[in-house]
Amino acid sequence: MTYKELCSSIKTRQSFLCLGLDPDYTKLPLSVKSGKNPLFVFCKEIADEVADSCVAFKINTAFFEAEGSKGFSQLEELCHYLHSHYPTHLLIADAKRADIGNTSSMYAKAFFDTLECDAITLHPYMGRDSIEPFLQHHGKWSILLSLTSNSGAADFEQLITSDGIPLYLEVMQKAKTWGSAENMMFVIGATKSAYVAEIRKQFPDHFFLVPGTGTQGGDMGAVIAAGSNTAGGLLINVSRDILYASSGSDFTAAAASKAKYYLLQMRSFFMFDEIKNTP
Amino acid sequence: MTYKELCSSIKTRQSFLCLGLDPDYTKLPLSVKSGKNPLFVFCKEIADEVADSCVAFKINTAFFEAEGSKGFSQLEELCHYLHSHYPTHLLIADAKRADIGNTSSMYAKAFFDTLECDAITLHPYMGRDSIEPFLQHHGKWSILLSLTSNSGAADFEQLITSDGIPLYLEVMQKAKTWGSAENMMFVIGATKSAYVAEIRKQFPDHFFLVPGTGTQGGDMGAVIAAGSNTAGGLLINVSRDILYASSGSDFTAAAASKAKYYLLQMRSFFMFDEIKNTP
Repeated sequence: MTYKELCSSIKTRQSFLCLGLDPDYTKLPLSVKSGKNPLFVFCKEIADEVADSCVAFKINTAFFEAEGSKGFSQLEELCHYLHSHYPTHLLIADAKRADIGNTSSMYAKAFFDTLECDAITLHPYMGRDSIEPFLQHHGKWSILLSLTSNSGAADFEQLITSDGIPLYLEVMQKAKTWGSAENMMFVIGATKSAYVAEIRKQFPDHFFLVPGTGTQGGDMGAVIAAGSNTAGGLLINVSRDILYASSGSDFTAAAASKAKYYLLQMRSFFMFDEIKNTP
Repeated sequence: MTYKELCSSIKTRQSFLCLGLDPDYTKLPLSVKSGKNPLFVFCKEIADEVADSCVAFKINTAFFEAEGSKGFSQLEELCHYLHSHYPTHLLIADAKRADIGNTSSMYAKAFFDTLECDAITLHPYMGRDSIEPFLQHHGKWSILLSLTSNSGAADFEQLITSDGIPLYLEVMQKAKTWGSAENMMFVIGATKSAYVAEIRKQFPDHFFLVPGTGTQGGDMGAVIAAGSNTAGGLLINVSRDILYASSGSDFTAAAASKAKYYLLQMRSFFMFDEIKNTP
């Protein structure tokens, strides 16, 4: 998916919403749990209901791997389903990978070719040659962890380097020379909204993938005010708060209604009609 | 596996060798490629031949994920096989994961419970709460990326922080307060052997997992001289140089012979009889 196509999808759907698919087996409704392929069925049914409200799906690989090969085959089924049924939604593998070059090439093959995802989240720690194999895939996106939403972000990401800036800015400044705003995004946690305006100033064109506005408590209005740009520039992820809106048989309707609640919030904070589709 | 058991295994087998299992489908011998479950069969046959020379197996998850669910089921089969047939070998998932707490818990479940591995490699970028869920599993090991063997290590790992030390030392100094030498190791690339003596001085008890002596060109003698301690303290990984020693039908014999070559090198550089089994 190109930058223009993503901007156009955000403008058309009037939404920054990314639906996070983190299916925790212990939290699934009984009716789903007792059937076949519960992780796939749960995610598929919610995605089908929420698709009109969102522009991206973010699949958390851990929740599938936790169930072993049974889980991984459901991950594969879900990727193929979402890729073929929602070609104008960005399909993100929230896999948080990266390794030496020949191994990163294998991960790129796994997520871009085999699983047909449009984007993958990546750890920047190992540097340039751990990220480049992903950037070589045309039309695909590398989403680098930068300033994350968890408390541990203070341990290293916010450490000041001898250049006088925090590590996450070193990461973003170096990484932007490896790719462009058309194949690289950054993860910026909503719980760090105080920093977002300054980050946006330095990175006017890149998309930011923003987790943390739901269960983690980040402020949606503050993130949109500080982080949006003329192309939109944001994907705001909500996972648990939508997925587990109800544990009863009405779980898809409850999820759709919660997604609409977030959508209306976004529309109250941003003029989607004014989006320009260029970086 | 406990620290004592690992030391004892190293002493008994007179070996630091960790066999890296990175099965690249395109490089497999024709006889294996044309059969069923080629990734599993290739790794199993080499592991069976090399087991006497090594103390650990390190499975690179990327090479299985690249083949999708077909690959993941072979990863699962290989983990179960090695866990049950070689209970005194350390079984490492070279998965390079880490995420926010509830997701890291799922990865820990995946690799420690479902796949029965003893250890997993982890990215430290997201800080303490991304690592702790792994440390909570008794008898299991978290292996943190510190100073890796690739050229990209210079981008961030070797950046000097405002404390006047490189980031990888900040990572190691903070991380050692989260766990102990009995449940945490560090990845230190053999291509960085000039730094190993200083690192060992600051971290006298921790095990170092050392990739990079094979195809990547690191110096085995220098790493052992600088990095070993009275408990052994090293796992030296070789992957491609053993796995692809021959592409013919003699691939297992060629792998065993290459592993013995590394083993004899190790024995020429280190007195395994003098190992003490305590941190």
